[in-house]
Amino acid sequence: MADPDKAVRARTVLQQCLHAKLQVQPPSEDAPAQWVEVGRGMVIYVCFFKGAEEEIIPKMVNTLLNVKLCEADSGKHVSVLDLPGDVLIIPQATLGGKVKGRGVQYHTNVGKEQGLGLFTQLILQCRQQLSGNPTWEEAGTVLHHGTYGNRQVLQLDTNGPYTHLVEF
Amino acid sequence: MADPDKAVRARTVLQQCLHAKLQVQPPSEDAPAQWVEVGRGMVIYVCFFKGAEEEIIPKMVNTLLNVKLCEADSGKHVSVLDLPGDVLIIPQATLGGKVKGRGVQYHTNVGKEQGLGLFTQLILQCRQQLSGNPTWEEAGTVLHHGTYGNRQVLQLDTNGPYTHLVEF
Repeated sequence: MADPDKAVRARTVLQQCLHAKLQVQPPSEDAPAQWVEVGRGMVIYVCFFKGAEEEIIPKMVNTLLNVKLCEADSGKHVSVLDLPGDVLIIPQATLGGKVKGRGVQYHTNVGKEQGLGLFTQLILQCRQQLSGNPTWEEAGTVLHHGTYGNRQVLQLDTNGPYTHLVEF
Repeated sequence: MADPDKAVRARTVLQQCLHAKLQVQPPSEDAPAQWVEVGRGMVIYVCFFKGAEEEIIPKMVNTLLNVKLCEADSGKHVSVLDLPGDVLIIPQATLGGKVKGRGVQYHTNVGKEQGLGLFTQLILQCRQQLSGNPTWEEAGTVLHHGTYGNRQVLQLDTNGPYTHLVEF
């Protein structure tokens, strides 16, 4: 009852970027690593907790794509939809960690299978909302995302990350 | 009483890096921009809230430098002190933001002057603890930090950011 994290079902960290490059497939014997790249826009790190259900996804998508955190050329802050900017969504289960002594515990993280389902829904619904927006769609902007469960090898170039925490 | 953020006095986000470059002085008419660079180690974004006092700094320093979040060559996770790794501390007042509609409010952030004092103390005490550790000190590792109040123009290269949220 006194647990302040009781109601948190998903944790996101948002950063602004000029360019980002993310590994979506590590190198294998047969093939080099595969990467995706985005330009100016927003990086969204996401983690789901136990108790998270698909019902929270529409609200997450709506908030993440509409919150005014992107710096337009005018200096004004607008949404990534209105910028219009690229979107890179990175699964980041470590965000659910809780420091305990010198270690970190992840007891409240959602299970892997359910987490993958939620992450997939988040990508799908983000894509739907972005594609349905003429400003965003016609600007040649892209949505990319990391591979759930993989190591998220990332390069990030910013004009100020402008880091925000948004919980759902 | 029902405010889950009531007790939070400082918010940090930790990321692991292979290399990071941060602008500490923007370009002027007379001089180019000044940057600091770190190698393999930890990036710490930090924000203080209203009610934060210097008393919390020792605990912050102790936790941030001793929590086992850095991947050693063995694959085991160790502290940045034990890695030993570089440390880059970035003031990031935006971490105190709260989404309200499509905007973000920063009403609970500490005032600028007090925030600068706390940030300065954090750097000072981190430096003391790092310098007092022979493993860290003799490895040629460095501690760098951003300029409080400036835009934190940042480039980050990671082998997986392994993003963690740690609040105090």
